[in-house]
Amino acid sequence: MSTTIKIRGEKSFALVWSLKRPWSFSIYFALDSIYVYEGGEEWQGLEENVAHVPFTGERYSEAEMIKRSQTFYELLNKRRSVRFLSDEPVPREVIDNVIRTAGTSPSGAHTEPWTFVVVQDPYLKHKIREIVEEEEEINYKKRMGDRWVNDLKRLRTNWIKEYLDTAPYLILIFKQVYGRLPNGKKKTHYYNEISVSIACGILLAALQNAGLCTVTSTPLNCGPQLRVLLQRPANEKLLLLLPVGYPKEDATVPALRRKPLEDIMVVI
Amino acid sequence: MSTTIKIRGEKSFALVWSLKRPWSFSIYFALDSIYVYEGGEEWQGLEENVAHVPFTGERYSEAEMIKRSQTFYELLNKRRSVRFLSDEPVPREVIDNVIRTAGTSPSGAHTEPWTFVVVQDPYLKHKIREIVEEEEEINYKKRMGDRWVNDLKRLRTNWIKEYLDTAPYLILIFKQVYGRLPNGKKKTHYYNEISVSIACGILLAALQNAGLCTVTSTPLNCGPQLRVLLQRPANEKLLLLLPVGYPKEDATVPALRRKPLEDIMVVI
Repeated sequence: MSTTIKIRGEKSFALVWSLKRPWSFSIYFALDSIYVYEGGEEWQGLEENVAHVPFTGERYSEAEMIKRSQTFYELLNKRRSVRFLSDEPVPREVIDNVIRTAGTSPSGAHTEPWTFVVVQDPYLKHKIREIVEEEEEINYKKRMGDRWVNDLKRLRTNWIKEYLDTAPYLILIFKQVYGRLPNGKKKTHYYNEISVSIACGILLAALQNAGLCTVTSTPLNCGPQLRVLLQRPANEKLLLLLPVGYPKEDATVPALRRKPLEDIMVVI
Repeated sequence: MSTTIKIRGEKSFALVWSLKRPWSFSIYFALDSIYVYEGGEEWQGLEENVAHVPFTGERYSEAEMIKRSQTFYELLNKRRSVRFLSDEPVPREVIDNVIRTAGTSPSGAHTEPWTFVVVQDPYLKHKIREIVEEEEEINYKKRMGDRWVNDLKRLRTNWIKEYLDTAPYLILIFKQVYGRLPNGKKKTHYYNEISVSIACGILLAALQNAGLCTVTSTPLNCGPQLRVLLQRPANEKLLLLLPVGYPKEDATVPALRRKPLEDIMVVI
């Protein structure tokens, strides 16, 4: 239980006590501001006038924990990157919920440096497809000159992105590389790329949990054009593009295997 | 349904057909290798000798999707970065499962460029604490010289990391910035930082699902020392350090709010 008391609208402190131990209480003073530096370790530092309150998490029995972690693994292990998406509509409420979920991610000094642009307009989706395919075609042809001149036809499938038209939603995730302080000065968002990528990991888990498919794509060369098309401000840079929908009935995926646990984990 | 046929141990193709439409089948030839270039859009490209197989995902009713996405949001929204962790033991099987889950993450051209080092040895945990605190103290004192000379005492809590001793497990996540080709040459892992950060997002979701707590930390200045301490090879760079355990009974968290949906999502 806690209460926050403000004095002169600037400083604040919190009185924190527990119903279990009402004879004991703590007073927490908040710092006026937090100085975030590049080598900083802490992600969610104290912010301006933020009090501390008791934390209570969910607690499960050991057997439940093992079962929950196993079930979640099985659910996520069924996730695959799917390039063949149907045009069947998806409830908008589900999209709202998965983005809300991504927004629970931690971020450097709690800057929450992400913008999720959800495109459902068919004209805009097609414009995005044009930009991405044009850029990809240049990439492939330019690069292929070196190695794969004869494979041009076979690779064509790699720059044609039909899913950009068919998927009911395209989610374009922008990282905010800086923000604005109340005085108008630039505020650097340290670790913005890591923060936004972590949020995307949570988004992928939320999509999989809802039965939706996507393919994680990084149309880096297209970032500036897509930013202008979607009228995003200059402090936002495109990180990822996720087409979201149901898989097509005849969708296929490469028969990839994942590394076993012993190849990715070391216990000391 | 599919079968993969290998010829001379090198080339392969897959025969894919559906029980629903047995009169129709497709043959997929695999490319010998995939050339991953920096501006590349696709994350999980074709790999050597990988055939394509039909994909079948889980399909829920619209009502179920909405409910599942809402429930998952509520679960993840309870996650907080917790710095006060108890020394109570946590079943190792849960740690295995959450790391297995992180390993289901997509990665650039399916390189899976992650190593999860789980430290449970008390001596090693303490060594890690010494390295992190020493580096952090230098950072704080050096930086604080500019701004906060008088606040030294009040900030002390920021470089003392008790959780590095008390948490039953420290998970140090390394990104593999390059790999090795079969011929011994370096293979660049494009997007390795984004890939590993996405895997960490999935790891955070898995921890929260199991009822475990952590705080996302980025001890960047300590990376080289910790890499040597943990005997990781030169191609691995420390990305994040997650202490994992149950919250202490008297754990507190800053009373932060998250941005509402309308501040993080734009629908067009």
